[in-house]
Amino acid sequence: MDIEALQVFLAREFQQVAGDVRIDGLDIDRLTMRLLASDRHLRPGGTVGGPAIFMLADVAAYCVILSRIGPRALTVTTNAGIDFLRKPAANRDLLCEATILKLGRSLVVVDTRILSEGSGLLVARANLTYSIPPASSAVS
Amino acid sequence: MDIEALQVFLAREFQQVAGDVRIDGLDIDRLTMRLLASDRHLRPGGTVGGPAIFMLADVAAYCVILSRIGPRALTVTTNAGIDFLRKPAANRDLLCEATILKLGRSLVVVDTRILSEGSGLLVARANLTYSIPPASSAVS
Amino acid sequence: MDIEALQVFLAREFQQVAGDVRIDGLDIDRLTMRLLASDRHLRPGGTVGGPAIFMLADVAAYCVILSRIGPRALTVTTNAGIDFLRKPAANRDLLCEATILKLGRSLVVVDTRILSEGSGLLVARANLTYSIPPASSAVS
Amino acid sequence: MDIEALQVFLAREFQQVAGDVRIDGLDIDRLTMRLLASDRHLRPGGTVGGPAIFMLADVAAYCVILSRIGPRALTVTTNAGIDFLRKPAANRDLLCEATILKLGRSLVVVDTRILSEGSGLLVARANLTYSIPPASSAVS
Repeated sequence: MDIEALQVFLAREFQQVAGDVRIDGLDIDRLTMRLLASDRHLRPGGTVGGPAIFMLADVAAYCVILSRIGPRALTVTTNAGIDFLRKPAANRDLLCEATILKLGRSLVVVDTRILSEGSGLLVARANLTYSIPPASSAVS
Repeated sequence: MDIEALQVFLAREFQQVAGDVRIDGLDIDRLTMRLLASDRHLRPGGTVGGPAIFMLADVAAYCVILSRIGPRALTVTTNAGIDFLRKPAANRDLLCEATILKLGRSLVVVDTRILSEGSGLLVARANLTYSIPPASSAVS
Repeated sequence: MDIEALQVFLAREFQQVAGDVRIDGLDIDRLTMRLLASDRHLRPGGTVGGPAIFMLADVAAYCVILSRIGPRALTVTTNAGIDFLRKPAANRDLLCEATILKLGRSLVVVDTRILSEGSGLLVARANLTYSIPPASSAVS
Repeated sequence: MDIEALQVFLAREFQQVAGDVRIDGLDIDRLTMRLLASDRHLRPGGTVGGPAIFMLADVAAYCVILSRIGPRALTVTTNAGIDFLRKPAANRDLLCEATILKLGRSLVVVDTRILSEGSGLLVARANLTYSIPPASSAVS
């Protein structure tokens, strides 16, 4: 799936998050996703909170996997680990780079790095594992 | 802080999530929080998605810590790990039991277990670490 | 597999660790393993180090899985997360309680708790995921 | 601390592991460590087992931190997460590249990547967090 196909898929299957994120780039095994920061992602102190950062990492990882295996919506996260490293910059979008570390027959492991736009410092890193259903379950 | 004080604190400091959760119980070192499942938490297949489960674990862990140390809003998550074990039941609230494993001077580690209401099977478990600011930073 | 069968299996397949550990108890879904603390597990300060604690959690989790699925040696750890909570007591064995949280067709998730013998305080907790091979691969 | 100082420190403070590892390279924020694979690291199937890989990641991360903060032996691991991605190659040393993601006042987060020598494929990745003691506790 290319960027356009992924955005259409998100808009149809994940209406809850599709308006919050945008795919900025896609290479083989690597995808960059932007979190369009808005009030509902903020926590005390005015910066994007942990659950919104987790959501960004999870959706970015999900999309980079679908870019390789096609629209299998029932691909599910089985495990995730996240380090929150620095407070995000205020009033900036977050950028997440998701890279596939291993694409197995039933498990996929993805590494993600999250930064505030315009900053070289990591805000967070996360590792995520997904279980992928058999190919026959693809959504048409 | 007791249940009422925690709910007031959430409503003021975390307006984004306060309407989604409710504290059902609080003991020393243990708190039970309910996710009032609604459409915006769902993923393809009609069950509560990973980011909403993560949010529930994070807010429950945050509240059980504040119940012990008082209203220090700048307590932040530094690390989290989560296993997604089973699909939640459809149309059911989720319940999260958060237990403090270690309350140190600057770090607190919390274990959480998430179930669908009325089911004995775990939907997820998560471990979360928080960094707590010095006592002088308490919000009045 | 019962305790005796597991100990025989460890002695044959894991000679490197079999002398370091002993199974103290086994219930359905739960196993208690002891680390016979010795000099080679120690770190500066004279207490058991992180890698030895990790090894204990990993072997205990592996054994509680084999107690359910039989002697499939090629069961492998795919993911682990560990929180080191408190320094172990000096000159004490460590006890690890390993509990199966989910026994799936291809993935098993285990929760472990590690304490110093004679102490009620947790030294560490760890979550571990294993991939299990098809039943036909059992070692006779 | 430079490579030689780190090796001397390991030989004195961590006799249990000093003979198993060797520092192959050190840059600012990045260190490469080699596991000299031997029989006692192997598991059924003849490849290096999970606990030995964890030990390698832990010692490499510890050393890259000491290279920055000096010989504070009581620096301790507080949290670690590891994904085991592929079986190591048989009869090959493992190489671990450890990179500091954040060097805070009291917490340090390190990312590690483990490969079999001569292979471009990841065997494992791990994230580790350390708590560092005040500077006054340095070992002379």
